[in-house]
Amino acid sequence: MSEHIRIVLVNTSHPGNIGAAARAMKTMGLSTLYLVAPEKFPNSHANALAVGAVDILEKAVVVPTLEGAIDDCELIVGTSTRNRKIPWPLLTPREFAEKAHARPAKTAILFGREDSGLTNEELHRCHFHIQIPTNAQFSSLNLAAAVQVIAYEIHATSLHANQTPEPWDFAWANAQQMEGFYEHLEKVLMQINFLDPANPRQLMTRLRRLYLRAHPVEF
Amino acid sequence: MSEHIRIVLVNTSHPGNIGAAARAMKTMGLSTLYLVAPEKFPNSHANALAVGAVDILEKAVVVPTLEGAIDDCELIVGTSTRNRKIPWPLLTPREFAEKAHARPAKTAILFGREDSGLTNEELHRCHFHIQIPTNAQFSSLNLAAAVQVIAYEIHATSLHANQTPEPWDFAWANAQQMEGFYEHLEKVLMQINFLDPANPRQLMTRLRRLYLRAHPVEF
Repeated sequence: MSEHIRIVLVNTSHPGNIGAAARAMKTMGLSTLYLVAPEKFPNSHANALAVGAVDILEKAVVVPTLEGAIDDCELIVGTSTRNRKIPWPLLTPREFAEKAHARPAKTAILFGREDSGLTNEELHRCHFHIQIPTNAQFSSLNLAAAVQVIAYEIHATSLHANQTPEPWDFAWANAQQMEGFYEHLEKVLMQINFLDPANPRQLMTRLRRLYLRAHPVEF
Repeated sequence: MSEHIRIVLVNTSHPGNIGAAARAMKTMGLSTLYLVAPEKFPNSHANALAVGAVDILEKAVVVPTLEGAIDDCELIVGTSTRNRKIPWPLLTPREFAEKAHARPAKTAILFGREDSGLTNEELHRCHFHIQIPTNAQFSSLNLAAAVQVIAYEIHATSLHANQTPEPWDFAWANAQQMEGFYEHLEKVLMQINFLDPANPRQLMTRLRRLYLRAHPVEF
């Protein structure tokens, strides 16, 4: 039911968290795991904490950079606990789960480093940020616990989801196609002197946000 | 907001799970932890996994039997992954969270042993069972992950909860008062030869279930 959704763990330090995340995924029917530059993997501690979910670790895809984990994806969301300098469209886990079921697309859910989360650059690759609602005085969720909450919402929402998908004829452009577009756009904006490379400010980030909101289709 | 809700871990084997459960609780604004006959507690591994939630471990109440953790509670719910021989009122985490917010009462949420969960006797002390919806082929949630999911639902639901509580004038009887009642009832049923002590079958369990559904008030 959720084959189109992959979990992407970025630059995880502790292999135990990778194993515990795999177990959390499997309890909720998710099975596709991408690992971007994990510090230690494969690893016996990861296997120990995966318990009956070692199969997910065995078929996990390890890639050196984020691109390898999202290039073919049409919807990219990143988990974030902080409000960033440049505001971004923000969903609760439940709102995301409803969206994911209303229109199934190849989806990547990014989880950042244990200590510092996702970088701004990684977050700027996302259509939406997901913020798990937490105690304002203590928002420090364990990585696997965050995976558990998101996976639980996807599963629980699927049980009540409206089975009629959104009507829409065209597939969304994937991350790789959009990167090609941004690269071209940036060049053109420099050629016409709209973007000053000596003082780019946040122009490209703001344009990314605009196009991610518009969510262009393939054509 | 959720001071009236306590987490009760019954007979936990691994102290790391106690620490991880405390962290899960604190991220969602829960702070009252009862430990029924934990195998190893206090324990340095528990503290290590609690990270910034060691305060919850420090004020955790350790009791030798379940009674010490629930006697003063007016609503008792138990987490369960299996369907039991005698069916019991069952809620999803979300249904439970909505109920808990509609009528705040002194509430205990019971989590069983890592390997075998709660016993039937423990489950028969509960007004409701909560079943976390899982993958039918792999329902093995880690203990702290189960605490995280339930605590998350309580917190997320509180953000949308109708702030008008159910109108009701009387306080519910607590677990200790109800035990006194069952004890008396059992004696009377034997005196009038309705209950045969040589062949009690499931009579008292069925009566418990009846009265737990009715949820008597103090009088």
